[in-house]
Amino acid sequence: MKVKLPSARDVVSARKRIRDFVETTPVLTSSVIDNIAGAKVLIKAECLQQTGSFKLRGASNRLLQIPKKQRDRGVVAFSSGNHAQGVARAARRLGMPALIVMPSDAPSVKTEGVEADGAEVRLYDRNTENREEIAASIANERGAVLVPSFDDPKIIAGQGTLGLEFAEQLKDRGEELDHLICCTGGGGLISGIALALSKVSPETQIWTAEPEGHEDWKRSLEQGSIVSNEPGTRSRCDAILTPQPGELTWAIGSELLAGGCAISDQHVFEAMRIAFRQLRIVVEPGGAAALAAAMFRLPEEAKGKTVGVVLTGGNVDPRFFADVLNRTV
Amino acid sequence: MKVKLPSARDVVSARKRIRDFVETTPVLTSSVIDNIAGAKVLIKAECLQQTGSFKLRGASNRLLQIPKKQRDRGVVAFSSGNHAQGVARAARRLGMPALIVMPSDAPSVKTEGVEADGAEVRLYDRNTENREEIAASIANERGAVLVPSFDDPKIIAGQGTLGLEFAEQLKDRGEELDHLICCTGGGGLISGIALALSKVSPETQIWTAEPEGHEDWKRSLEQGSIVSNEPGTRSRCDAILTPQPGELTWAIGSELLAGGCAISDQHVFEAMRIAFRQLRIVVEPGGAAALAAAMFRLPEEAKGKTVGVVLTGGNVDPRFFADVLNRTV
Repeated sequence: MKVKLPSARDVVSARKRIRDFVETTPVLTSSVIDNIAGAKVLIKAECLQQTGSFKLRGASNRLLQIPKKQRDRGVVAFSSGNHAQGVARAARRLGMPALIVMPSDAPSVKTEGVEADGAEVRLYDRNTENREEIAASIANERGAVLVPSFDDPKIIAGQGTLGLEFAEQLKDRGEELDHLICCTGGGGLISGIALALSKVSPETQIWTAEPEGHEDWKRSLEQGSIVSNEPGTRSRCDAILTPQPGELTWAIGSELLAGGCAISDQHVFEAMRIAFRQLRIVVEPGGAAALAAAMFRLPEEAKGKTVGVVLTGGNVDPRFFADVLNRTV
Repeated sequence: MKVKLPSARDVVSARKRIRDFVETTPVLTSSVIDNIAGAKVLIKAECLQQTGSFKLRGASNRLLQIPKKQRDRGVVAFSSGNHAQGVARAARRLGMPALIVMPSDAPSVKTEGVEADGAEVRLYDRNTENREEIAASIANERGAVLVPSFDDPKIIAGQGTLGLEFAEQLKDRGEELDHLICCTGGGGLISGIALALSKVSPETQIWTAEPEGHEDWKRSLEQGSIVSNEPGTRSRCDAILTPQPGELTWAIGSELLAGGCAISDQHVFEAMRIAFRQLRIVVEPGGAAALAAAMFRLPEEAKGKTVGVVLTGGNVDPRFFADVLNRTV
């Protein structure tokens, strides 16, 4: 491997570095959710983070490490939405220009969020264009830094700050996590959290939550090596549809994760409705996967235990959310 | 006046008393909201409180002061919903029986919340029955304590803990409130907050937010004495439709409040949509009134200033919320 893996210490450094860039998001509970899950569920509501997802953590940690003299040239990223908004916000905070390559079918709430932070949006067609190539070529032209969405040591360390923060909040409440479930796409967040918890809560067993047909992490962990998803399975969990674990995230995750949970879109929608009603928060489909897993696909060994759940994002188009509430989807 | 008014010191005592019964709710911000309001808006998201509203604060403070030997006989309350849930939850925590008299047209999310906490619900018809009489008669039969929803010193002091908590959170952020806007029905919350801030932030000007046609506080403050609303005006802000200020809450509010803001239901719905999209939280109509006022009816003297907004509750039926998102209401 060419790139050095991040360490638990890098997560601690990241936490200090990004302190003024992110909010401490609350931990929520609901006895209704506990009853459905058959476990004590402690919910990290990261959908309440600035920009509506955890992605601001990694983006801030990455951009803050760009040398000052290089910042004028800006940053480029490609993303279906949440990473885009994280990069755009961190760039705005640092006065850096940002361009984001986004799919033309991204939820408009996400493209608008990016534009509201003053970033440029370059739309591409998922079927005919290659976003990596477009982004690399623009970055190259401008001398800008390309900010990857998950497979990067500084991104992973930044996302991992959520794990440190969660563990501290639970300590203040006199709680400890037996298990933690986290929505997983490329694995930047869960591998960062796993690094963080490996020091401060090493007994915690950590599980991915992934849409059925996109449970590449679950199957990779069972098999002990990276497997890809079969193309063609559809899911509304747009934020966490990645073909396979990343190189760095897998190197970390394969050592530190317990396994995975695959959940259906219908269970995800039910989790969104329960979060609406019991927690009064807005969670996007990909962001609700871990709550769905805790309630409807909890691993046997987690029954009756204390289970942490990370709600990763809340950027969802109003009409689609209304369809979920009305059960017409 | 027969009853002694609560003091700022009572709010401090209440805060210690109820510490284990309530959550510290987060302060949220959004540059989009700042731009619409033309002010720096700091949002206290009390809709994320356990039971979905601030009412748990007052109910906990009241029930914790019922002598232990009297607790077996339980409590009775009447409420359209949020106070009901606050009382039911506090009663459950203390192992007390609770009966709540609720209107037959209360949002089902509210009646279900009460029942989920093990309280008994007695429905009544708004048009033909008198809830005060029903509740008093049941309380009398059972020897139970009747818990009023706002015009009670211990309820007011309990709700006021929100003000202390908000002021402390802002101090930690290096902020101070020039103005604060709070959704107001009977006035239990705003008078409690006013008491709290009179000690810790005496320069803050405090404003009610009320539905148009139900702006009894606004008009009472302008006139210097209690005036009632004309009957017949409809509003979807079910949580804050009271005919006139309470006796105790007026005695406090008339001394400490700056004035009021009246807002239309359409502005309230727009505030709900903006809270959904920019803050990723669920706010009920009555709970969004202050945010609507900050964005669309901000008092002239608050322009360009730091304005606190209290989002008081998030219990709203999913189908109605979907209608708000779809703009069909």
